[in-house]
Amino acid sequence: MAEYVVNKLAVIGVGLIGGSLALALREAGAVVQVSGVDVSESNLEVALARGIVDSVSSDPAEGVRDADMVVLATPVRAMRGALEAALPGLAPDAVITDVGSVKEDVIAQIEPLVPQTAALVPGHPVAGTEKGGAAAAFSSLFRGRFCVLTPTPRTPEHALNRVRALWRAAGSQVVEMEASRHDRIMAVVSHLPHMVAYTMVNTVEERERLAGRLLEFSAGGFRDFTRVASSDPVMWRDIALSNREALLDAMTCFETLWKTLKEHIASGDEKALEDFFIRARALRARLPQVK
Amino acid sequence: MAEYVVNKLAVIGVGLIGGSLALALREAGAVVQVSGVDVSESNLEVALARGIVDSVSSDPAEGVRDADMVVLATPVRAMRGALEAALPGLAPDAVITDVGSVKEDVIAQIEPLVPQTAALVPGHPVAGTEKGGAAAAFSSLFRGRFCVLTPTPRTPEHALNRVRALWRAAGSQVVEMEASRHDRIMAVVSHLPHMVAYTMVNTVEERERLAGRLLEFSAGGFRDFTRVASSDPVMWRDIALSNREALLDAMTCFETLWKTLKEHIASGDEKALEDFFIRARALRARLPQVK
Repeated sequence: MAEYVVNKLAVIGVGLIGGSLALALREAGAVVQVSGVDVSESNLEVALARGIVDSVSSDPAEGVRDADMVVLATPVRAMRGALEAALPGLAPDAVITDVGSVKEDVIAQIEPLVPQTAALVPGHPVAGTEKGGAAAAFSSLFRGRFCVLTPTPRTPEHALNRVRALWRAAGSQVVEMEASRHDRIMAVVSHLPHMVAYTMVNTVEERERLAGRLLEFSAGGFRDFTRVASSDPVMWRDIALSNREALLDAMTCFETLWKTLKEHIASGDEKALEDFFIRARALRARLPQVK
Repeated sequence: MAEYVVNKLAVIGVGLIGGSLALALREAGAVVQVSGVDVSESNLEVALARGIVDSVSSDPAEGVRDADMVVLATPVRAMRGALEAALPGLAPDAVITDVGSVKEDVIAQIEPLVPQTAALVPGHPVAGTEKGGAAAAFSSLFRGRFCVLTPTPRTPEHALNRVRALWRAAGSQVVEMEASRHDRIMAVVSHLPHMVAYTMVNTVEERERLAGRLLEFSAGGFRDFTRVASSDPVMWRDIALSNREALLDAMTCFETLWKTLKEHIASGDEKALEDFFIRARALRARLPQVK
C-alpha cells in the first residue's frame, strides 16, 4: 500500500517523464485518477490508448480541475506558460511539482504564479532516455534512480512530504538540496555531456559532407555519442538556456582541458598525454554501480 | 574450408586484437599453429591457458621463426621496435601485417625494415572494446566489421590476397584504401571521439574534486563517456601521436563548433541552438545499421 495516494493527478506534458510517472504511480496503487494535458493531440491519443491517463485535454485549466497534485512535465521554458494557463482551473490547495532538469530558473519563472493557498515543490527525477513522447513511457523508468527535490523557503512541509512520497512510490531515491547546487551538479554531469555529444556528432556531419564515407566506418566510440545527441532538441535548447551560467562555466572548464590535450598532442609530450588518459580511466572505478 | 590456411601464425602482442584474431582463425580452421610474443609473461600465460596460442616467447626473433604470417598487434609506436627485434628469426618469404589504428606513420616506421623477399600488408580491423589483454579476446570480435587494408606500392599482390583471405576467415568485410585517407577518416570517427570522452571525464573529475557529490548523480549521458575513456592509455597515447596532424585538424574542427555552440547559449539564440541540436539528431538516421 502506498504511503500516500493522489486522488486526481494532472500531468501537463505527457511525454517520457510525465507518462512514466503516471504509469509508475498506477502500478504502485498510488493514484486514483490521471488527467493528461498536452499540446499534441496525437500524443494524448497515445497516452489514452496506452492507459497512461484516464482523461485528456488540450486546455490546462480544464485538465487540472479538482486535481490535488499537478505535475509540470513540459520542456522547462514552457512551464511558466503552462502553469499560467492552468491557474483558472487550479484547486486552491493543489500541490504543484515539476520535473525540470534545471531548478533555479524554473523556480524563478513559476513560483511567483503559485497562489498563496497552493504549494510548489520543485523536483527533478534524474532519469531519462533519448526517446520522447507518451509512446516511450514505461513504469520502471525511475526505479532505483535519484529524484532531487529543491524546496524553496515558501514550500510547506506537508507538500514536500507528499511529493517525496510520490517519487518513492515511483521507485526513486529522493534527495533534497538547494536549487543552485542541483544546477551546478547537473551542468557538469548531464548538460555538459549532451553539449559534447551534439558537438561531436556535428563535427562528423561537417566532415562527412566534405570527405564522404565517414559514417560507414563509425563503429565503436562514435556510436554512443549519436544516441545521446538524439535527445529532443527543444527540451535541450530549453535546458541550455535555463541553466546558461552554470553550463557555460562547465563548457569553459571542458574547453580549457581540451586545449591542454591539444597542446600535449601538438608538442608530442608522451608522459603528459598518457597521464591525461590514465586520469580519465581512474574515475570509472569511482562511479557508483548502476542497478 | 578456409580459402587460405596459415601454417604458422606469429602474433606479436597477444592482446584483445591479436588474441581475438588467433581465436577467430582457429575457429575458422584457417590456421595450423599459433606462436605468441608479448612483453608481459603473465599475459602470455593467459593466452596459453585459454588456447589462444600453442607456444609463447618473449623474444620476437624466436617467436616468428618459421612463421609464414606475422601479425604486429602491439601499440602502434611499439611496432617498429618489435619488428626490428623479430628480423633475425624472420622467414625470408614471410608476410607481415599489422593491426594499427594509424596507417601512414606505421608504414613509415616499419616498411623500411621489411626485407626485400618478405612482404608488408598494412591493415586495421575496425573493431575493439575498452578492455585489453589476452583475457579479453574473443573469436567473434571481427564478425561483420570492416577491416581496412592500405597496401603500399611495395605490397605484392599475393601477400595482399593472403591477408585479405585471413580477415575474411575472421568474419570481417575487407576494404582497401590509401593510408592517408584511412587516417583522416579514423581521426574523425574514432580518434576524435576518444579525445572528447577523455576530456569530458577529466572535466567531471576536476569538478568533482572541487565540489564533490557529482558522481552519484552521473546517470544517463555521462556514463557512456566513461566506458570509452577506459580504453588503454598507452594505446591511445600512441594513436594520438602517430596520427597527430589529422587528429589535431579534427580537434580544431570540434573546437570551432564548440565555440559556436557556446555563443548560441551565451547570446540566448533559441533558433540557432535548436538548429544545432536538430542537425545532430538528423545524422543518426543516416548511420549504417550495426549487425
